[in-house]
Amino acid sequence: MQAKFPSESLTILTDMVLPGETNPLNNLFGGELLARMDRAASIAARRHSRRITVTASVNHVAFNRAIPLGSVVTVEAKVSRSFKSSMEIYIDVWVEDRESGTRAKANEAIYTFVAVDDTGRPVEVPAITPQTNEEKERYDAALRRKQLSLVLAGKMKPEEATELKALFI
Amino acid sequence: MQAKFPSESLTILTDMVLPGETNPLNNLFGGELLARMDRAASIAARRHSRRITVTASVNHVAFNRAIPLGSVVTVEAKVSRSFKSSMEIYIDVWVEDRESGTRAKANEAIYTFVAVDDTGRPVEVPAITPQTNEEKERYDAALRRKQLSLVLAGKMKPEEATELKALFI
Amino acid sequence: MQAKFPSESLTILTDMVLPGETNPLNNLFGGELLARMDRAASIAARRHSRRITVTASVNHVAFNRAIPLGSVVTVEAKVSRSFKSSMEIYIDVWVEDRESGTRAKANEAIYTFVAVDDTGRPVEVPAITPQTNEEKERYDAALRRKQLSLVLAGKMKPEEATELKALFI
Amino acid sequence: MQAKFPSESLTILTDMVLPGETNPLNNLFGGELLARMDRAASIAARRHSRRITVTASVNHVAFNRAIPLGSVVTVEAKVSRSFKSSMEIYIDVWVEDRESGTRAKANEAIYTFVAVDDTGRPVEVPAITPQTNEEKERYDAALRRKQLSLVLAGKMKPEEATELKALFI
Amino acid sequence: MQAKFPSESLTILTDMVLPGETNPLNNLFGGELLARMDRAASIAARRHSRRITVTASVNHVAFNRAIPLGSVVTVEAKVSRSFKSSMEIYIDVWVEDRESGTRAKANEAIYTFVAVDDTGRPVEVPAITPQTNEEKERYDAALRRKQLSLVLAGKMKPEEATELKALFI
Amino acid sequence: MQAKFPSESLTILTDMVLPGETNPLNNLFGGELLARMDRAASIAARRHSRRITVTASVNHVAFNRAIPLGSVVTVEAKVSRSFKSSMEIYIDVWVEDRESGTRAKANEAIYTFVAVDDTGRPVEVPAITPQTNEEKERYDAALRRKQLSLVLAGKMKPEEATELKALFI
Repeated sequence: MQAKFPSESLTILTDMVLPGETNPLNNLFGGELLARMDRAASIAARRHSRRITVTASVNHVAFNRAIPLGSVVTVEAKVSRSFKSSMEIYIDVWVEDRESGTRAKANEAIYTFVAVDDTGRPVEVPAITPQTNEEKERYDAALRRKQLSLVLAGKMKPEEATELKALFI
Repeated sequence: MQAKFPSESLTILTDMVLPGETNPLNNLFGGELLARMDRAASIAARRHSRRITVTASVNHVAFNRAIPLGSVVTVEAKVSRSFKSSMEIYIDVWVEDRESGTRAKANEAIYTFVAVDDTGRPVEVPAITPQTNEEKERYDAALRRKQLSLVLAGKMKPEEATELKALFI
Repeated sequence: MQAKFPSESLTILTDMVLPGETNPLNNLFGGELLARMDRAASIAARRHSRRITVTASVNHVAFNRAIPLGSVVTVEAKVSRSFKSSMEIYIDVWVEDRESGTRAKANEAIYTFVAVDDTGRPVEVPAITPQTNEEKERYDAALRRKQLSLVLAGKMKPEEATELKALFI
Repeated sequence: MQAKFPSESLTILTDMVLPGETNPLNNLFGGELLARMDRAASIAARRHSRRITVTASVNHVAFNRAIPLGSVVTVEAKVSRSFKSSMEIYIDVWVEDRESGTRAKANEAIYTFVAVDDTGRPVEVPAITPQTNEEKERYDAALRRKQLSLVLAGKMKPEEATELKALFI
Repeated sequence: MQAKFPSESLTILTDMVLPGETNPLNNLFGGELLARMDRAASIAARRHSRRITVTASVNHVAFNRAIPLGSVVTVEAKVSRSFKSSMEIYIDVWVEDRESGTRAKANEAIYTFVAVDDTGRPVEVPAITPQTNEEKERYDAALRRKQLSLVLAGKMKPEEATELKALFI
Repeated sequence: MQAKFPSESLTILTDMVLPGETNPLNNLFGGELLARMDRAASIAARRHSRRITVTASVNHVAFNRAIPLGSVVTVEAKVSRSFKSSMEIYIDVWVEDRESGTRAKANEAIYTFVAVDDTGRPVEVPAITPQTNEEKERYDAALRRKQLSLVLAGKMKPEEATELKALFI
């Protein structure tokens, strides 16, 4: 399988915040944003692997900025690193100011998807070659996150998580 | 106000077709697609005008291809021509084949939005300068569609609709 | 097949505007109204043809009046003219004042549906005989709209669109 | 206040059963039908009283017939009797066979609404004069149901519920 | 089949009131609450019978207290009595005050479900043994309600409804 | 402020998986489950703090088991540790077998919420005293997770994350 670039899986979902999607403070409801990101990430994983993909985990989501009713929200998802049959998807969420047109980062999230065949068994996915500086940083960090998640799940010994361990010593 | 390019209002909404959005034949429900296009077009109009925008009319939508459950659908909306305070938005809808990654045109639609101030009164919007050949064709056709809609509404005499009349003579 | 009357396909959908269906100005969201009209029109087409029907196009929708949260909205759909296997559906939307009980026209829309068999192939539908003056006017105009749509799609030469051409000469 | 006829409050809500509204057996989900009936009944109560109305109780709903995905369902709601500030609404639900066009009763329901002013205080509503035989029967039975509900709530002594008691003696 | 206790079917559904579920007065929409109660009751019936269960009727729902946007609502459903193949489910709805943490009864409802096999035919369900005082009272009243519903449906003669009749004589 | 027990914030949300909430494989859509967990966790945080609470982050969610259409899903959320103004919420999701009644763990998730006053400023929350063994383990691990998240965000030096570091050395 030929390696791909992160840009080939870029998925853009621009949409408005409607009243039915807001919490009592009139901001976009956290659960609704989690769902939008899941859909965008799942499409990015599919574009990279050309396979059926299923959510394996949500590694991290930080909600840094409330998104008010009526905002235009852009979710951008891109594969940051692929492993044997899993892919880490990095998601950036932007909010756009109507009058100035400038956009600000609202939050970031990292999801992991697995590619499966029709019977649900994991299948191999293409490698990925990061191009921009940001893509390279996220590619490197993805390995540490992978080790971390294996360590936390008791599936890897801390001393074998070489890249992660380097952070602490 | 400085003229803008159609590309500046380009709005992309890529999303999946979920079971709750399908009709009894398991294809994307027409009404749901109309709603998604309305949201994307409304954002494009807002990006062109930096104003509050409201749907004035749906000029035409042709449903050429059924979109099955689980498809990845991309709605792309761009301002095709602006008039005093109204904007015509041209919308292309694409469906993507999971295995090959090729995408096919599912349908096209044309909506008109009006820019308003906080009290709901129409306000002027920037002119637009088409760049690509497709943008130029849509720009020209937009004038004929505008005349047509005025004629059908009895607000313009057929003989004054110069560009439109030229089609028939 | 025996011709039918427009009144035989009359479909009435009276419902309230709930908070989850409004835009940031607290008026009924355009996309939601398009979806309601699509459902009502599809039932009218089915009542006329007794067949499975699919949306072929939205010919025109003009949004003339904002519909505020909490309003009672009545969508009335009726077949205005049938062609070989397609039907034009004319839709009137009314808003009702709670205190006086009077109702005002909020907008009109025209959709086209096609009747199909189980394999999705177009099948013939009954002719229609308009009765009221309004039905007769809409029946006549439907032919011009049909020609217009064929001309705009490049499927009919403008000079063959006799009824439509008459408007301009 | 002048008495009104039941027909003046008649509210018709015809709509399709979409996939997002069905239970695991592919029939219209009970809760969704309860919600549709509530909206139709609330409009009927509003048409009778020209007031804000709130659901006071659901007296009875019998689900006699499963309503499959893709069905056309018609909910018809009419005020059957009014008391000081409350109204009993009788609801008939019909399912329509696509091929023959005949419709069958799917279920009946009885809801009670109260008319209130802007501060939420109950206000008087017009009396009602039943016209058809069915309307007269429902009008008479409404009084027994009212007594029954007062008895069950401990707000009326059984021996004072004259019309109801007559059933048992 | 061994008798069960009401507590074995206890089903708790605690959730918030979101903006998309409120009526124009910003209180939980009656229809939405009816739907939530239907889902909780259906799970309680399933837990008692370990069968597929379908809503047979809504016997009574009284809306005693408006539930404002942002409230935490707890729906608690428990089988109150079982008959041959049907079960009466008693539902209590509580609203919780955020600051004090105290909860108040918002309303009560009674639904009836029937257990069916895969072909939709009614099947027998276990008997039930009430334990607490409240469970015993509801168990006794369930029989009177059952008789009442048979009498009103014309399926039982009033004089045979022994327990019910005792109320009036 | 007096310390509380985890059990005081326990929030249970039992509900069915409806067709509108499933992905193309007829399993509960990941985004929908993320949203349900967010609502349950937000209520648990509110019960612990008696304050308005907002989602600060999703630390981890592992989807271990597909949840098919029609399943009964129970989301249980409990505060596992509180810091100055933030709370870690541990969520267990169970799926119940209809016939045997046994329930299996479908997945676990960890969310963080912050308590705020009416102006959105963080306010202090009560401490927590874990009681069961599981609560104690989760309480200890919460500190390591907190340190990890600060390290990854560049807000704490790895060598200061004492408890976390101990894992690697």
